[in-house]
Amino acid sequence: MRVGVLTGGGDCPGLNAVIRSVVRKGVQEYAFDFVGVRDGWLGLLKNDVVPLDISSVRGILPRGGTILGSSRTNPFKHEDGLQRVQDTLASHEVDALVVIGGEDTLGAATELSRHGINLVGVPKTIDNDVSGTDYTFGFDTAVGIATEAIDRLHTTAESHMRALVVEVMGRHSGWIALHAGIAGGANVILIPERPFDIDQVCELVKRRFEINYAPIVVVAEGAVPKAGQLMVKDQSLDEFGHVRLSGIGEWLAQEISARTRKDARTTVLGHIQRGGTPSAFDRWLATRFGLHAIDAVKEGDFGRMVALRGTRIVRVPLADATAQNKVVDRSLYEEFEAFYG
Amino acid sequence: MRVGVLTGGGDCPGLNAVIRSVVRKGVQEYAFDFVGVRDGWLGLLKNDVVPLDISSVRGILPRGGTILGSSRTNPFKHEDGLQRVQDTLASHEVDALVVIGGEDTLGAATELSRHGINLVGVPKTIDNDVSGTDYTFGFDTAVGIATEAIDRLHTTAESHMRALVVEVMGRHSGWIALHAGIAGGANVILIPERPFDIDQVCELVKRRFEINYAPIVVVAEGAVPKAGQLMVKDQSLDEFGHVRLSGIGEWLAQEISARTRKDARTTVLGHIQRGGTPSAFDRWLATRFGLHAIDAVKEGDFGRMVALRGTRIVRVPLADATAQNKVVDRSLYEEFEAFYG
Amino acid sequence: MRVGVLTGGGDCPGLNAVIRSVVRKGVQEYAFDFVGVRDGWLGLLKNDVVPLDISSVRGILPRGGTILGSSRTNPFKHEDGLQRVQDTLASHEVDALVVIGGEDTLGAATELSRHGINLVGVPKTIDNDVSGTDYTFGFDTAVGIATEAIDRLHTTAESHMRALVVEVMGRHSGWIALHAGIAGGANVILIPERPFDIDQVCELVKRRFEINYAPIVVVAEGAVPKAGQLMVKDQSLDEFGHVRLSGIGEWLAQEISARTRKDARTTVLGHIQRGGTPSAFDRWLATRFGLHAIDAVKEGDFGRMVALRGTRIVRVPLADATAQNKVVDRSLYEEFEAFYG
Amino acid sequence: MRVGVLTGGGDCPGLNAVIRSVVRKGVQEYAFDFVGVRDGWLGLLKNDVVPLDISSVRGILPRGGTILGSSRTNPFKHEDGLQRVQDTLASHEVDALVVIGGEDTLGAATELSRHGINLVGVPKTIDNDVSGTDYTFGFDTAVGIATEAIDRLHTTAESHMRALVVEVMGRHSGWIALHAGIAGGANVILIPERPFDIDQVCELVKRRFEINYAPIVVVAEGAVPKAGQLMVKDQSLDEFGHVRLSGIGEWLAQEISARTRKDARTTVLGHIQRGGTPSAFDRWLATRFGLHAIDAVKEGDFGRMVALRGTRIVRVPLADATAQNKVVDRSLYEEFEAFYG
Repeated sequence: MRVGVLTGGGDCPGLNAVIRSVVRKGVQEYAFDFVGVRDGWLGLLKNDVVPLDISSVRGILPRGGTILGSSRTNPFKHEDGLQRVQDTLASHEVDALVVIGGEDTLGAATELSRHGINLVGVPKTIDNDVSGTDYTFGFDTAVGIATEAIDRLHTTAESHMRALVVEVMGRHSGWIALHAGIAGGANVILIPERPFDIDQVCELVKRRFEINYAPIVVVAEGAVPKAGQLMVKDQSLDEFGHVRLSGIGEWLAQEISARTRKDARTTVLGHIQRGGTPSAFDRWLATRFGLHAIDAVKEGDFGRMVALRGTRIVRVPLADATAQNKVVDRSLYEEFEAFYG
Repeated sequence: MRVGVLTGGGDCPGLNAVIRSVVRKGVQEYAFDFVGVRDGWLGLLKNDVVPLDISSVRGILPRGGTILGSSRTNPFKHEDGLQRVQDTLASHEVDALVVIGGEDTLGAATELSRHGINLVGVPKTIDNDVSGTDYTFGFDTAVGIATEAIDRLHTTAESHMRALVVEVMGRHSGWIALHAGIAGGANVILIPERPFDIDQVCELVKRRFEINYAPIVVVAEGAVPKAGQLMVKDQSLDEFGHVRLSGIGEWLAQEISARTRKDARTTVLGHIQRGGTPSAFDRWLATRFGLHAIDAVKEGDFGRMVALRGTRIVRVPLADATAQNKVVDRSLYEEFEAFYG
Repeated sequence: MRVGVLTGGGDCPGLNAVIRSVVRKGVQEYAFDFVGVRDGWLGLLKNDVVPLDISSVRGILPRGGTILGSSRTNPFKHEDGLQRVQDTLASHEVDALVVIGGEDTLGAATELSRHGINLVGVPKTIDNDVSGTDYTFGFDTAVGIATEAIDRLHTTAESHMRALVVEVMGRHSGWIALHAGIAGGANVILIPERPFDIDQVCELVKRRFEINYAPIVVVAEGAVPKAGQLMVKDQSLDEFGHVRLSGIGEWLAQEISARTRKDARTTVLGHIQRGGTPSAFDRWLATRFGLHAIDAVKEGDFGRMVALRGTRIVRVPLADATAQNKVVDRSLYEEFEAFYG
Repeated sequence: MRVGVLTGGGDCPGLNAVIRSVVRKGVQEYAFDFVGVRDGWLGLLKNDVVPLDISSVRGILPRGGTILGSSRTNPFKHEDGLQRVQDTLASHEVDALVVIGGEDTLGAATELSRHGINLVGVPKTIDNDVSGTDYTFGFDTAVGIATEAIDRLHTTAESHMRALVVEVMGRHSGWIALHAGIAGGANVILIPERPFDIDQVCELVKRRFEINYAPIVVVAEGAVPKAGQLMVKDQSLDEFGHVRLSGIGEWLAQEISARTRKDARTTVLGHIQRGGTPSAFDRWLATRFGLHAIDAVKEGDFGRMVALRGTRIVRVPLADATAQNKVVDRSLYEEFEAFYG
């Protein structure tokens, strides 16, 4: 049996750990052959496929990024996309695919599966917003990096001279902001799921200064103020209607500064949250995802995605996983009410 | 309502995070009063009780250790232990206790609960061997430290001149060894649950050298060779029959060296695994345990322990949790067979 | 003899290490008494002075910030400033001061010294721009944090889809940018000492993409483009004429994006560079500065500043140290020419 | 001109940074050709030489170990060693060598230089014990790792239940022990340069417990007790007469435990101190060493070693550098007397 492996979407620590465990178990226990597809779905459109064996995956466990390359290409947005994918798979005699990716990549996988392509999905997202799994790998690493950054800001907060704003990832969901904010002891946590009231934020900020400690505000990049509160001149909004480039973190610092008469400074973590070596938790999870994905291939259990439930790895229908984003629900956010403000 | 908080047993990153969240939510949402019991059960025997309020818990979230002190004292091993505990609680008008501890501390809590003392347990163990919960806080931190150590040894392993042995915590269970070994890409992982065959270990070591890469052996401090293989002159065994002080890691290095004619070196991580700041995951878990424990107190749901199941915090009977150690089961260990050797 | 200790200016990892070693050696070897002055020169203006002994400095070695508080107050900008400082010192019978601070704080110290106040200076600046000393503490910590951030960006750079801009500290000097840029393997390093040509930067960026690797651009917050190249509408400049708030890093990303048609993303490290625990190097240096400063007090060698020369600690006249900023000279910058681009 | 590069002796973070900067500057500025010699002097004996160009050194800056391999081979201990070295160099038309190594490797280089081989040395030692240079790369990384370990032990020390012993590298010199011990706030620091009195150590340990804080003892692997105090049954001594394998750290813990009736635990850091990514300081230093070494080759200034003096890189005669080990002198050790005990 010959199995293809591809990684799609943005960087995510742990991708290489999945590739490694898929290949290690596939070769050693099931005597499978492997090929690597370059740059996600693009490699199947362009017939860019490389050999993949145990020596290819040696030493990659701790490395960020993906040895296979990635892209955001969707085969169904290209003419003859389906046909070209099928042709590439046929020409390399690939019997099955392991597809590692986020919502978009797995969405295409779901569609390809319906067209008869044998594949197993592995969920990947820094943002932790794929449904059907307790956690995705990469998330723990990102939370760890953001938490360490917040820890360092407490030194400055003790001097209670300025408010400190940290912008973290999360365009559609606030998982990183909430986890890092709680782990880091932030006073204000703003997430996309709950449009915030800038007046209330400034109120909390002021109150914090009164106990001689500066506020630390964690804001997800996709968080937005209530309707009508965002006024930015000469600044383009992105496709989602969010402030582009100069960012919500910078906007917040300017507003806090203007309204509270306290200096406010911003840290924008950006891509450092998705780079570098994966945390031990993410390596463990990614490795197990890989081992279970190749088991599913062995059993011919296609059209499914591996997922974490508690401490067990299970399989769920791909369609369920990609039906909707997993967001922070109200009750979880409110669980931490004692720490806001 | 007045609530006492105590921490028992060994150090564990996250203890302070629990104390903080118990007090923050108890004061702010339920208007409880708090007292801190010093040095675990010892403080109740000796009537060593201190005030505890929001200012006491400020800034302690990222700090290792416990602001309340700890001990391994068991009240039932002291004359009039139960009576003295009851007297101390009565003299300070304490209505309920939050007891944060491992197997021993929670065992005493179970017994005290049977004698009518109102208490809620919070499980704590670096080793992750408390039943009834998916994970305990402190474990993720320890795994992270051990994994980083293994990462660094790969540099030396590349020069394939010597075998590298890492001794990690785990007297009765191999959770840390297995998680760190898998996350770090070790070739041999030895855990207390499976007595190992030193001949087989040396065989794997030799095979590893053949591919021009040195083996990395992770061994839990409680791992033991098969009956008859351990020969140590002039060395005392501890109460569990394990090699004391010079350690299983050192023994392994000596045996590997003698049998394979390759140099072998040992790293013994010791207490650095349980010290320092908790990981983001552990702070999140410890904080949630605290919030749910004080909810249980509020609801008068005593004799229970908070526990993690998937992403939810649940309550389980204290007696269930302390009935037996949670060990690494055979199927989990074998899940990673592709990586051994 | 009674000695006062004060810390002035911005946060800097290592301040507490200086305070600790001054007090430890002063008490144990010279039997001095100590008082701590709160919030820099402000404490001397407001007579805000606290007791300081060995128990006050226990456990502070690894902690960022300063237990004494700080401020940017200059006594000579306050009416009767000199008199009030003298009165406070007299009322507490303070014979000598150890003044830990940067250019501004030491400038005031120089002036006070001329007015007969016995003091010894300890140079402090994250930016490493105090003359007369090879390095200042805090700098190594900041460089380490910035380098780790750059390391993480290499993962994203490998996918060669977007340019990555990192804005680091350095309003007047490029020490952090140069050190972290070289240590992190950046391709473009922009420092305040050399106004940059945005066309040339974009040329280097384009060339980098051609070898299938994205460029990493490190820019000091005080770096500026050549005259005429900076066009920012509706944006206020700060007192030094630098772009305020939305920052040079963001401006660069926008320009690179517009001119090269490649996506560009910014990381703004901000205050995380000056917070948290000091590096081992900074603790060693800060500890030695403190030990030598109290030796100078013991010897009555006032009006001097301790400084690092090679591996030795020496004393230099305060006036020399504060005469001018230490900047990155042309030859050092050019030493690394092989790595630019 | 064709230049060979070789690395000899033990692992050391920063070796790859030197190789990279030698090749980058040599190719780009001087248009040199390069070859890499495998496994130190062994590669010259065995004619094991590989091509080396800019693509070979891409991405290696943050990686520990050496891409060229290393060995402890001394050409003068092999028959016809000198002749074989000369033959290999001649067969590859190598005009000059850059030799990166410690005392032994540079000792052989000195001898080869006397026999007319054109070479420039770059000093390398984790232990910082090469004369003629303020610091060597690798040392800062090792000190950082050891300091972080000590930091973590303070959490346990606060519970004042057990003495904590940390064994660090340093067979002949105490640089790592002294730097990490001071940076970590240890109470007892034992170095090879000063045989210690075990009775006095136990006295300091006892005194520390009296202030309700456990002692942290840092011991260099090569530290020894005063004559007559070391009694170890059935244990082999190594070639230097030091306790082999079970180590001085373990011996100390046993003695402390037996003499003070307090539990004592050991952490043996071992090879994790020399593995993994180099610190920013070490990358900066290693990079500069490489740049200056290739300048020396360009200028034909052979038989010399690059060295750090203050912030400048200088060249010193190879013979001077290898004449004797640099040890911690009495005055530096005593500078920190206020912190011992």
